[in-house]
This record gives sequence, C-alpha cells and structure tokens, in this order.
Amino acid sequence: MGRIIVEVMPKPEILDPQGKAVGSALPRLGITSFTAVRQGKCFHLSVDGPVTEELLADARRAAEEVLSNPIIEDVVRVEALPEEGAAK
Amino acid sequence: MGRIIVEVMPKPEILDPQGKAVGSALPRLGITSFTAVRQGKCFHLSVDGPVTEELLADARRAAEEVLSNPIIEDVVRVEALPEEGAAK
Repeated sequence: MGRIIVEVMPKPEILDPQGKAVGSALPRLGITSFTAVRQGKCFHLSVDGPVTEELLADARRAAEEVLSNPIIEDVVRVEALPEEGAAK
Repeated sequence: MGRIIVEVMPKPEILDPQGKAVGSALPRLGITSFTAVRQGKCFHLSVDGPVTEELLADARRAAEEVLSNPIIEDVVRVEALPEEGAAK
C-alpha cells in the first residue's frame, strides 16, 4: 500500500491569521528563532499497491479541484511518500 | 532566508472526520483511486540566514510544544525546505 502526500499553503499575498497566532505564541515559550510562520494543510492519500504516475496525476487533479481553494491557496507538493511512512 | 517545514498528522488510531469528508467527496468527481484520506497540518517556519541544526532543534521543540497536540497528533516531519521554495 502506497501513499501520496499533498501539501497546500495559503498564497504568499494572503493573510494567514492561524500562522500569525502560532508565530506570536512561540516567543512566549522562549523560541525566538523564527521570523514568520505560515500554516497550511496536508493530505495523505492511500492507494492500493505502489504509487504510479497515473495515481500521481489523479492526486494532482484532486489537489487542484478538491483539496485546495485556488483563489487563496497554492498546491506546493504532490509526491509519493517513502514506504516506511506507508507502513505506519 | 531559509525555511523549515513541520508536518503534523492525526495519530493513526484517531478518527479524522475532515479526511473522511474529503475522501467521500473525491468519487463524486470521478476520482476513485484512493482508499483513504487523512488530513493534517503543515507549518513553514521562516528563519534569517540558512537553516542550522540548532534551528532545526528549535523547530522540533516548537512542533512538540505548540504546533501539535501530542494526545491526538504526531509530528511526522521537521526538515529544511530547499532554497527554491524559500525564494517563493
């Protein structure tokens, strides 16, 4: 059984209140190394058998049509997850 | 300027209603290749300068203490994003 990961992030020009909230929580914990935080979504799509090019194409279509809102979000990654992840 | 990605997924034994909803929406679009969908979160942490081991350690701590709820979620990835992504 393979898995495909799809990563969706808010477009750079879109405000990201969740990311901002996380970014302001970190210094309160003494973590001051990060200049900005953006929060996005990721999806793990399970498939029977190995991940083929055809399945990746399906995943890309799903990413554009269902998993992301193209007005405010970018699909930044669609790729097969290594098998060790799939065994989890 | 570098960036670190943190990926957080619901634990395998935890129900994931968002993922389930997405999974049932896909066949309505004719995409029937996927046996299951899980939805998680990802965070892009920006840093000044290149990503060092020390910054990755900070990111791991942020991931465990702020970005994830360890009762129901696993931190599945903490790593530097390639520079091309950082240039975005």
